[in-house]
Amino acid sequence: MTVNQKITALRQEMQKQKLAAYIVPSSDPHQSEYVAAHWQSRAWLSGFTGSAGTLIVTLDHAGLWTDSRYFIQAEEELKGSEIVLHRQQVPHAPEHINWLVSHLPNLSTEWSEGNKVGIDGSLFTVNQVRQMARAFQAKDLQIAGEFDLISTIWQDRPPLPKSPIYEHELKFAGRSRSEKIQIVQDELKKADVAYHLITTLDDVAWVLNLRGSDIEFNPLFVAFCIIGQEATYLFTDHEKINTSLKNKLNEAGVILKAYEQIHEHLSQLDGKIWYDRSGINIQLFNAIQDQHRFESFNICRKAKAIKTPHEVQHICNAMRKDGVALLRLFRWLEAELDKRSVSEYELAQQLASFRSQQEHYVGESFAAIAGYRGNGAIVHYRPKKEGSAMIKKEGILLLDSGGQYLDGTTDITRTVPLSEPTAEQKRNYTLVLKGHIALDQAIFPKGTTGVQLDTLARMYLWQDGLNYGHGTGHGVGYFLNVHEPPQGFATGPTTSRGTTALEPGMFSSNEPGFYKTNEYGIRIENLVICRKAKETDFGTFYKLEALTLFPIDKQLIDAQIMTVKEKQWLNTYHQKVWDELSPLLEKEEQAWLKTKCAPL
Amino acid sequence: MTVNQKITALRQEMQKQKLAAYIVPSSDPHQSEYVAAHWQSRAWLSGFTGSAGTLIVTLDHAGLWTDSRYFIQAEEELKGSEIVLHRQQVPHAPEHINWLVSHLPNLSTEWSEGNKVGIDGSLFTVNQVRQMARAFQAKDLQIAGEFDLISTIWQDRPPLPKSPIYEHELKFAGRSRSEKIQIVQDELKKADVAYHLITTLDDVAWVLNLRGSDIEFNPLFVAFCIIGQEATYLFTDHEKINTSLKNKLNEAGVILKAYEQIHEHLSQLDGKIWYDRSGINIQLFNAIQDQHRFESFNICRKAKAIKTPHEVQHICNAMRKDGVALLRLFRWLEAELDKRSVSEYELAQQLASFRSQQEHYVGESFAAIAGYRGNGAIVHYRPKKEGSAMIKKEGILLLDSGGQYLDGTTDITRTVPLSEPTAEQKRNYTLVLKGHIALDQAIFPKGTTGVQLDTLARMYLWQDGLNYGHGTGHGVGYFLNVHEPPQGFATGPTTSRGTTALEPGMFSSNEPGFYKTNEYGIRIENLVICRKAKETDFGTFYKLEALTLFPIDKQLIDAQIMTVKEKQWLNTYHQKVWDELSPLLEKEEQAWLKTKCAPL
Repeated sequence: MTVNQKITALRQEMQKQKLAAYIVPSSDPHQSEYVAAHWQSRAWLSGFTGSAGTLIVTLDHAGLWTDSRYFIQAEEELKGSEIVLHRQQVPHAPEHINWLVSHLPNLSTEWSEGNKVGIDGSLFTVNQVRQMARAFQAKDLQIAGEFDLISTIWQDRPPLPKSPIYEHELKFAGRSRSEKIQIVQDELKKADVAYHLITTLDDVAWVLNLRGSDIEFNPLFVAFCIIGQEATYLFTDHEKINTSLKNKLNEAGVILKAYEQIHEHLSQLDGKIWYDRSGINIQLFNAIQDQHRFESFNICRKAKAIKTPHEVQHICNAMRKDGVALLRLFRWLEAELDKRSVSEYELAQQLASFRSQQEHYVGESFAAIAGYRGNGAIVHYRPKKEGSAMIKKEGILLLDSGGQYLDGTTDITRTVPLSEPTAEQKRNYTLVLKGHIALDQAIFPKGTTGVQLDTLARMYLWQDGLNYGHGTGHGVGYFLNVHEPPQGFATGPTTSRGTTALEPGMFSSNEPGFYKTNEYGIRIENLVICRKAKETDFGTFYKLEALTLFPIDKQLIDAQIMTVKEKQWLNTYHQKVWDELSPLLEKEEQAWLKTKCAPL
Repeated sequence: MTVNQKITALRQEMQKQKLAAYIVPSSDPHQSEYVAAHWQSRAWLSGFTGSAGTLIVTLDHAGLWTDSRYFIQAEEELKGSEIVLHRQQVPHAPEHINWLVSHLPNLSTEWSEGNKVGIDGSLFTVNQVRQMARAFQAKDLQIAGEFDLISTIWQDRPPLPKSPIYEHELKFAGRSRSEKIQIVQDELKKADVAYHLITTLDDVAWVLNLRGSDIEFNPLFVAFCIIGQEATYLFTDHEKINTSLKNKLNEAGVILKAYEQIHEHLSQLDGKIWYDRSGINIQLFNAIQDQHRFESFNICRKAKAIKTPHEVQHICNAMRKDGVALLRLFRWLEAELDKRSVSEYELAQQLASFRSQQEHYVGESFAAIAGYRGNGAIVHYRPKKEGSAMIKKEGILLLDSGGQYLDGTTDITRTVPLSEPTAEQKRNYTLVLKGHIALDQAIFPKGTTGVQLDTLARMYLWQDGLNYGHGTGHGVGYFLNVHEPPQGFATGPTTSRGTTALEPGMFSSNEPGFYKTNEYGIRIENLVICRKAKETDFGTFYKLEALTLFPIDKQLIDAQIMTVKEKQWLNTYHQKVWDELSPLLEKEEQAWLKTKCAPL
């Protein structure tokens, strides 16, 4: 089937159901960052394979909304189809909703029931549907959430993923699944609520100390979970769990149910059901009886964000391994560049290979961004096997990568010059570094949120009329997702990253950057843990501490615009890197590290 | 009637209506900051006269919730009554709601209808009621919004205020009422909505270029307004408007209606009604038919926040007058202190007197805070006629005050030492000043919100484990409220001050502080206007510019911890103060100002 044939088939289904428009989003029923092939319906229908985008089909129009990251790719991939590319001004903004509001009332249809907008309710959260309803209120547009038209027309739809579910061993996890289930039960008891519904895959994995590989880069499996005072229900494909693990789950009071049983089960539960309205999809929401609804936060999200001392100790070890792998990669690159040029793709492959030599390595935590020269300015760049840029001994290289280890998830960015940098490059790198240091050095009172701290990383760039178009940091999981809500550092108080108060044990990235289109990208990223700093008459104050261990390039620094304190920070950090990594290195590697860690 | 008799009378009414609890808030139907005597029912019922507090009466308990500002006052005023003081941990937090949730289900009543919580719906916003409903969901508590029990038992309740409504002349207002009404009509047309309901008194005053004196410090009158494409309806007491003004309103298409007619009128309108759900009370909300509801922002709030060049020019003139008045006050104080001590109350009175000698003066914009020594550390301190502290030539004085002029509203705080300050005082003053300068000097991209900028004013204090317990700045009206939403600088992204993006023309205070309990208070406050700074490849950048004109004390500065740039900022600001004020001064006054403005 061509894309146009698929659109035509969809329109026939819409006619049958008297829908004036149909929305196909990029999401799955769990609001996952990466989506299993089974749910990549927007890509299947439109041919556009980017990670973010929404397709809207009306009787006389088919449009794809995506943001500037994907304009070129979308133009290419939509060629030859009737789908029109709508260029979003602001990523994630509901511009397609505004389009519906202004175009749909003018659409003449053959039926007279008014204008219904169809969606598959399993792919939209309650909050998203409510937002849409608010936008639609002036035009009397209706939302119809019960229409999965894609399954009808997608004949060869990939099945749900089948990869085995395995245990995250207690020696790594630190707390048993019974202890974690108890955390949820304690919250339920306090609020006098019967059940907690868990819909997000990383929370299901965390609370049960289970992992899988259903989804790229995230060690997760497709499932729902319901925790009550008496029992815990896990809704997933039984066949993915071996007998020994089944027995263990059974011992912990975990009852297995089929994935598809979740709706029926929810509708039959007797008692209040606590769910997170920013995460629950409208189909699950509708399965819960009105009088049983209890809207609140996601209990596991908050609990798993606070890393335990046991977890932090493991993370520190993962950081040492990651630093060693990165050191070997950079030394390898230097040696190769003396002989030949190296493609960005090869560099990324080689890095994964060095990481894989480290103990307890599982895989990459995301697709490494090896951005040479102008490619470094493309924030979500991912070098492809064919045609990625060839790195030579000139210009700037940005390398953002991370690993999944059984004892921690890593994420680090370093920017290095491969020839003598210009004064402008040095100034901009130093402004980014000053921001990185300001955030790392911050002392802030209990209750301070990510949006309040984000500014510290940007203020020097802003003074020069410069900026970067991404958040300054995201939460990081413990052998879980590299992007883990709720906390982080962001400009927008409307995201959870902005509104979540930092607490001791929260683990986040600190990654300000600067991007000059077609020329170069700069980013300096460490992972930082929040710790208690001091107690004064004015309350409790917290601080951040970098756990990432790898030298920050000094050739790009303009020392003249750094303060004495900033230089001290850098020297102290490099001393720590030396102390932690040098015992793990060969003699030649030590010599290399010594130079990189020498005081400024 | 004693307080206990009033509580008993209220309980009798509650029994009649089968209410398990009744909530008496501090608000009026317009969500005003200052409330006319008619609506001071919480004060009448409880005897507690503080501005913030909520009374809850159940069949066996009467409790008053207020925050730490009012603990001592509340203890005094509640003495001899059965009302128990509940000390709030966090100001404005819904701790009384949590108390209801945990106590009400245990209350045994004589009826079996379940537990109903009664409120007067005119005093609660839709958002407040929805929040309450969320908190009540687990316990099956019901909210009954139709009960004004206070009017029944408050025999000698003061009538609605009767002060005349007058015109804010075009030469000050700059735009006619027809132009302002058109702004609203244009927004309505864009959204295809028939009416805009305006419930906030400053917005009614702004859109119609009218003022009154129904409320202390705010030049407002009690009214509602509805703007449609065809007509504008003003709901207020006709008798407060003279014939000539009635004719002018008539010419602009404004139709007068009685204040009490608003509910009936709303229920009969045909077409969508656009209202602000954070401002509309639940009684008005209920008067609007379901299918006519259109929830959105407050159109006037946004429009009036952006001061026009005409308004800014007038504000600059008001600032000059305000600076002259303040200079005369400080010179007067110095002369008096050589001879005698001066009470804080007398100081505040004298300041109002100096302001009143200036052209177009109307009154104070709030009760001046003259806080000597330990009183300066009480953030909302207001010296009383009897027993305010006597100021001598020692210690620190904090003076926060403002004026209402026909050509602008002012608000300024200065902190001065009356004897040689300690090293600690100088350090803390200088940390506050560094924060004030950092915010004033900030350059930030379009879209930046108050919560992002607030941190700049606090970061130096935080490093020392210090902080202050109020926002860094609020919006300021133009001959309107001295606290004018939406924008400002606040730590909390949950307030509009935090989430509103700064735009050129927005006018706010910049007032970081530091308070050492029982010892001294420090605050440095200027009013700043947002302006465009530059356009770069990274977008449009804005900056702030101080319009307030009065020297910042230098004796309290520890110059050693100030950077070169910070000293330059202070010297440039003082040069501007000298240039603007000196032409308006007597020779001796000029000499005084010269010293205060001399370079650091």
